[in-house]
Amino acid sequence: MKIKDFGGEFAVIDMIASMDKRKAGNEIIKGIGDDCAAIKHNSGKYLLVTTDMMVENDHFCLKWQTPYQVGMKLMEVNVSDIVAMGGIPEYAFISISIKKDTTVEFMEELYKGLYDSAKKHNVSVLGGDTTHGTEYTLNATLIGKSRSKYTRFRSGAKKGDIICVTGTLGGSTAGLKLLLHGKAEGMDLKDHLEPKSRTAEEGMIIARFANSMIDVSDGLGSEVRHICEESKIGARIDYDSIPIKKSSFDAAEKLSMNAYDFALYGGEDFQIVFTITKENLKKIKKKFTDFTIIGEILDKDQGLFILKEGKKSEVQKGYDHFA
Amino acid sequence: MKIKDFGGEFAVIDMIASMDKRKAGNEIIKGIGDDCAAIKHNSGKYLLVTTDMMVENDHFCLKWQTPYQVGMKLMEVNVSDIVAMGGIPEYAFISISIKKDTTVEFMEELYKGLYDSAKKHNVSVLGGDTTHGTEYTLNATLIGKSRSKYTRFRSGAKKGDIICVTGTLGGSTAGLKLLLHGKAEGMDLKDHLEPKSRTAEEGMIIARFANSMIDVSDGLGSEVRHICEESKIGARIDYDSIPIKKSSFDAAEKLSMNAYDFALYGGEDFQIVFTITKENLKKIKKKFTDFTIIGEILDKDQGLFILKEGKKSEVQKGYDHFA
Repeated sequence: MKIKDFGGEFAVIDMIASMDKRKAGNEIIKGIGDDCAAIKHNSGKYLLVTTDMMVENDHFCLKWQTPYQVGMKLMEVNVSDIVAMGGIPEYAFISISIKKDTTVEFMEELYKGLYDSAKKHNVSVLGGDTTHGTEYTLNATLIGKSRSKYTRFRSGAKKGDIICVTGTLGGSTAGLKLLLHGKAEGMDLKDHLEPKSRTAEEGMIIARFANSMIDVSDGLGSEVRHICEESKIGARIDYDSIPIKKSSFDAAEKLSMNAYDFALYGGEDFQIVFTITKENLKKIKKKFTDFTIIGEILDKDQGLFILKEGKKSEVQKGYDHFA
Repeated sequence: MKIKDFGGEFAVIDMIASMDKRKAGNEIIKGIGDDCAAIKHNSGKYLLVTTDMMVENDHFCLKWQTPYQVGMKLMEVNVSDIVAMGGIPEYAFISISIKKDTTVEFMEELYKGLYDSAKKHNVSVLGGDTTHGTEYTLNATLIGKSRSKYTRFRSGAKKGDIICVTGTLGGSTAGLKLLLHGKAEGMDLKDHLEPKSRTAEEGMIIARFANSMIDVSDGLGSEVRHICEESKIGARIDYDSIPIKKSSFDAAEKLSMNAYDFALYGGEDFQIVFTITKENLKKIKKKFTDFTIIGEILDKDQGLFILKEGKKSEVQKGYDHFA
């Protein structure tokens, strides 16, 4: 059976996860199914581990991205997963499969981008594997730590929580669509070419006050859906509240597309979605303000929906590698 | 400049490693340059981390390997790196890039092999990433622990140490060559199709008595060279002592090739090379005997060489992905 007929990427991941029948050890706090795995460490800390793979012409394109930008992205997307649990990234392991005719200069630029991002986030690259293939495939595994008390999962959302998102959404997809449709000239492409993780400092402030967190890798719709499923609750997303920057609206206009679709279903913005009580919302604003309220956590039986001009609509499925 | 003109795979890895000028933190015991990175953990333990990438038609071939065997291999090659430092593997993170038309049955078989091997070594799979590409690329990152006192590096060999290797060598390459030359019928291919790591129990016994350890992934010649470089010593490999099983001699004869070349330059046998004092050699034999003495550690200025019928010869370079 083809993966798409089986239910796509997430159905296969569910199947894989369910195949391992052994009971997890009591050191394991969280396995498959969040931004990172969490393992008991020492003195009130968790070890957080995440891994992300990037394939040429899917996660990056050398027609418009420099090797430096690709290396930077590989680090940023992994840092974002640690940040989205309230952790501090520490150690990275990089595997790359490169083409046989790859130049030394390409490798140098790729690793310059990777190390510059690593330095920014205080990450040490401690190992890796270099091999060759017919397309570029890059993988990073990132290990970090978090205080167990302030580690946030997708599963912590409570009825009545306010849903917030940092920064703006849709910028990465706006840039990608402009490039794909040959309408990129003179437009702002930075969110796509050089996506950035939020910092660990920001993530830790959010984690201190929030009930649940997730980073935006597959689009706001998909991330809120993950929170709903893991927390066993419903949610309302207020369509007009979704934070979108002017350049994304400009891109959407040029493309005759909808900038809200970029935000809801595009992904790769690496902002943080979090849910928080009303009381803590007041408190967090004294420490951190670069976020927008976009909805509310509801009872499970109310389901997940978007509210636009008083009318409910369904949240579509996000990007699926096998759809 | 092409990588092969720059000096190949290992020259590029050296360049990459040297690009990061920051001083490593004092938690980092070993970064790039051994089977695993070693990081201080707690109460006399190190965290060991390794990552290995496998690309279709390079590290495995679906013409003659089942998805089950490929999944198993992905786990075994990573376990071997932890075992070769004297550690116990614990947690695995699996990234896979698969073709769009991959079937659910393929994924199920692949993960069955992976989980069966994980179970054997008591490893929990805690996360991963699934994406698509035009060829199969699989990556595993494995985290384990070791007692700091009994963690062994490539760099610990001392002049006068006896060089030993577990099991037999060359079996994996013998099988591969038979397959590549269409002479596999009726021959023993298991060492190639289903390579196995030594167990953590065996690795820990060796680590307790040995001065240095490394696993055989690129061939005996390459591994002893790594020990020489990291330990800043020389070494003599006794050609006729290299342990080779009958089926590998049979394969070599059928192919008009040399079984010793399979052992020295083939790799993927996942046996453990270790160096040990004469005193400890007596002690280890009471606990573990599946190894062969193949040489001796010498002064640095005596260099690295093979001794065959009283004549010295050079150790050739091992497999290079970019040569």
